[in-house]
Amino acid sequence: MVRAIMHGCNGRMGQVITGLINEDEGIEIVAGIDAYTGRENAYPVFECIDKCDVEADVVIDFSNAAAVDALLGYCAKQKLPVVLCTTGLSEEQLERVEKASEKTAVLRSANMSLGINLLLKLVKDAARVLAGAGFDVELVERHHNQKVDAPSGTAVALADSINEAMDDAYTYVYDRSQVREKRDKKELGISAVRGGTIVGEHEIIFAGADEVVEFKHTAYSKAIFGKGAVEAAKYLAGKPAGRYDMSDVIVF
Amino acid sequence: MVRAIMHGCNGRMGQVITGLINEDEGIEIVAGIDAYTGRENAYPVFECIDKCDVEADVVIDFSNAAAVDALLGYCAKQKLPVVLCTTGLSEEQLERVEKASEKTAVLRSANMSLGINLLLKLVKDAARVLAGAGFDVELVERHHNQKVDAPSGTAVALADSINEAMDDAYTYVYDRSQVREKRDKKELGISAVRGGTIVGEHEIIFAGADEVVEFKHTAYSKAIFGKGAVEAAKYLAGKPAGRYDMSDVIVF
Amino acid sequence: MVRAIMHGCNGRMGQVITGLINEDEGIEIVAGIDAYTGRENAYPVFECIDKCDVEADVVIDFSNAAAVDALLGYCAKQKLPVVLCTTGLSEEQLERVEKASEKTAVLRSANMSLGINLLLKLVKDAARVLAGAGFDVELVERHHNQKVDAPSGTAVALADSINEAMDDAYTYVYDRSQVREKRDKKELGISAVRGGTIVGEHEIIFAGADEVVEFKHTAYSKAIFGKGAVEAAKYLAGKPAGRYDMSDVIVF
Amino acid sequence: MVRAIMHGCNGRMGQVITGLINEDEGIEIVAGIDAYTGRENAYPVFECIDKCDVEADVVIDFSNAAAVDALLGYCAKQKLPVVLCTTGLSEEQLERVEKASEKTAVLRSANMSLGINLLLKLVKDAARVLAGAGFDVELVERHHNQKVDAPSGTAVALADSINEAMDDAYTYVYDRSQVREKRDKKELGISAVRGGTIVGEHEIIFAGADEVVEFKHTAYSKAIFGKGAVEAAKYLAGKPAGRYDMSDVIVF
Repeated sequence: MVRAIMHGCNGRMGQVITGLINEDEGIEIVAGIDAYTGRENAYPVFECIDKCDVEADVVIDFSNAAAVDALLGYCAKQKLPVVLCTTGLSEEQLERVEKASEKTAVLRSANMSLGINLLLKLVKDAARVLAGAGFDVELVERHHNQKVDAPSGTAVALADSINEAMDDAYTYVYDRSQVREKRDKKELGISAVRGGTIVGEHEIIFAGADEVVEFKHTAYSKAIFGKGAVEAAKYLAGKPAGRYDMSDVIVF
Repeated sequence: MVRAIMHGCNGRMGQVITGLINEDEGIEIVAGIDAYTGRENAYPVFECIDKCDVEADVVIDFSNAAAVDALLGYCAKQKLPVVLCTTGLSEEQLERVEKASEKTAVLRSANMSLGINLLLKLVKDAARVLAGAGFDVELVERHHNQKVDAPSGTAVALADSINEAMDDAYTYVYDRSQVREKRDKKELGISAVRGGTIVGEHEIIFAGADEVVEFKHTAYSKAIFGKGAVEAAKYLAGKPAGRYDMSDVIVF
Repeated sequence: MVRAIMHGCNGRMGQVITGLINEDEGIEIVAGIDAYTGRENAYPVFECIDKCDVEADVVIDFSNAAAVDALLGYCAKQKLPVVLCTTGLSEEQLERVEKASEKTAVLRSANMSLGINLLLKLVKDAARVLAGAGFDVELVERHHNQKVDAPSGTAVALADSINEAMDDAYTYVYDRSQVREKRDKKELGISAVRGGTIVGEHEIIFAGADEVVEFKHTAYSKAIFGKGAVEAAKYLAGKPAGRYDMSDVIVF
Repeated sequence: MVRAIMHGCNGRMGQVITGLINEDEGIEIVAGIDAYTGRENAYPVFECIDKCDVEADVVIDFSNAAAVDALLGYCAKQKLPVVLCTTGLSEEQLERVEKASEKTAVLRSANMSLGINLLLKLVKDAARVLAGAGFDVELVERHHNQKVDAPSGTAVALADSINEAMDDAYTYVYDRSQVREKRDKKELGISAVRGGTIVGEHEIIFAGADEVVEFKHTAYSKAIFGKGAVEAAKYLAGKPAGRYDMSDVIVF
């Protein structure tokens, strides 16, 4: 059984992961870390990682940028693998992540979802077979009406994954209303739908002669990042020092 | 039983409609008109409408612009209702359509599909209830890679129908990749996907708080315009002179 | 501005509705009722409805069966309209609902979602036009893996709504794997998909000659019942005594 | 350039493939075989394969069971690879296929579509990752109202492919309306929708905690089998004797 420290245990994602690990027979939480200690947990909770004296195989981190420096120092020193899910790190912190990965295993991914990371792999295979046989590739993503960027980072990551498999042959097209011409074979159209509270949907469309193959991912809540983090922690325990990402966790 | 003349009976759509009417107990073809008379049909075929001496209740036209003038003259004179499906009419011909409609019933629509015309009505009702309750409206259409215009005329017609129900409150948005800001309540996003041989798909999305309502139309071939034309013919037989369109045929 | 009493204000749905009404300019909460009074609200909270002395135009109820009797008595006596969303009422209580509705306006629906109730109406119109023109009707619903009944009550309600519009001509079919025969025109197939934590999806499919029209509803959380309850409350305020349901609220 | 003989060149699929090969720079048709020789083609046409004296690298067969015996004899003798797409072979003929494959390369598949065969592979990978992480698997297929069997052979093939990757752990469930119980982890639900003229749609659904991954294949016409046959022919030219199927053609 993998022994995990939950860093940021009393935040929303920390509690989601606590719930997921409760139902998983391959991993347990042996300690939690959180500046706020007012919540009851089935495991001991420490104010900061340096005060934690519980032995563990891996740390799962969903805290905040301010807490990450101490965490990286601790993990590097203890040679403790860490799944780093906190976002918004500074350039300086990203360098510290690199440094820490020379001493211990560090896993970090733009998107922790198991489903998205699976699709990032499968669309490469699909592109080689289908785009190679003349199919056109298009992407449609949907998100809530509060999102300021378009297309989503995940949509671009999916497009990049396809493009990489096709030797960067594609140009991304975001708007077809301003021209009056047929689609070029080397276009990859990306459309962004915005509305309501949609958490996140991504469709990858391969359209050929009288045949369409589609891949679709639907997120119902941010809890999906927790599931990926748990699988990542089980994978990372015992691994040698180095940089890892979710694609390492997805093994067929 | 409605007696129809099939104008352009030996073209592709003429034959599709012949097949559809064969299976319809409410209507029969009593004569066909086609410059090409080499094909066998279960009904007599005349080279042009002026040579036709068979009595009928309605004409279904899927011919070509060159044949439309004679047709309009004939129908006006005989007070014979006509479902006019030929596209690409000149300005002059459109005026002749207006004139003919003073003498007989003329039905003409941008899109003859029963499904699309139904949705043109239902999205109005949906907009009044859902957009009125704060739902956002978005449209996604998909067509083959040879289509030069985007978005499709049907997508714009659907958006216009929604907009009309909302007192023209919406601005259409075709591209969100160039700005970094939240969706405005008064936007109506329209996305165009292009690929393969997709005949035509239209999705209308109403996205609210934790709830999405979608309307979708999929065309598998242009034969769908035939079905609409048959229903239109059955409706138009016996109607007084005037301009009609498919919305008149859709009665709940 | 409609003045509402939130009955069951400190439960999950009570809080969801409090949030929705905060952003709605047509309605405000003037008092809350909840046996648990430990939570801070922007309005005064009373332990039970009988202790409430605040004047209001309507009550929204999301409490529990035990609290409903007192509520019905109070509303009948005060002639206060009530949107009754608590489920699991006994036969006896349903009779009390009937009785109360002789004195005041009572709205109760199997499903409070605005989107579902809209579709219950629109599929009738679609059935009249499309099924009347030979389209086949099918339903597919998806729910989480903990749901014990199949198909969902909402799927059956949608099928019943279509069937009613077609003079009860349809027979529902739940399994096609045991026979080897063509679909009968009078079948209405209903399929139930179960998996993961899917909150609830309903698709109504009208399939014709080379043309498919689909209606789809997706729920992301039970919060959608709150939105419907708020719209219902705004509608019900000032209405005469009688039984109402969500179909009354959906006006085109 | 691969030189192909089109066996059954004047049938519908023979003509579809002639069109597809016209636009493909890696393969050409050097001769056609068809009992009916009344149609003009850009290549010489022979009444039966034994009369053909044109050198070729591969045969694509879309003829009829009666013509297959001569074809198999010819290909075995000439050591000419053959893509065998004719369906409805007798037991005796299937044995002859086996025998011929000892002398030359023979490719035969239940479904020749490139997209379906790609999905047959990808769903295995998805099952290993997602079903392994607790996702539930379900299948929904849609076909026209004239289809007598349900679920479709392709749906069963997709389910079998997933099941094989999971050590045959799943039981297929076709109807959930007769029981009142939660979904078992080892169920794989298969639903069949029937309506209109739908050519064929297959959806494979992996539903997890707040996350759904879907794979979807849509066929717009039977022409899709032609595209697969062309890719198969290009692959099979030059291959040693043996049995092959479309999974060999799909190489990532």
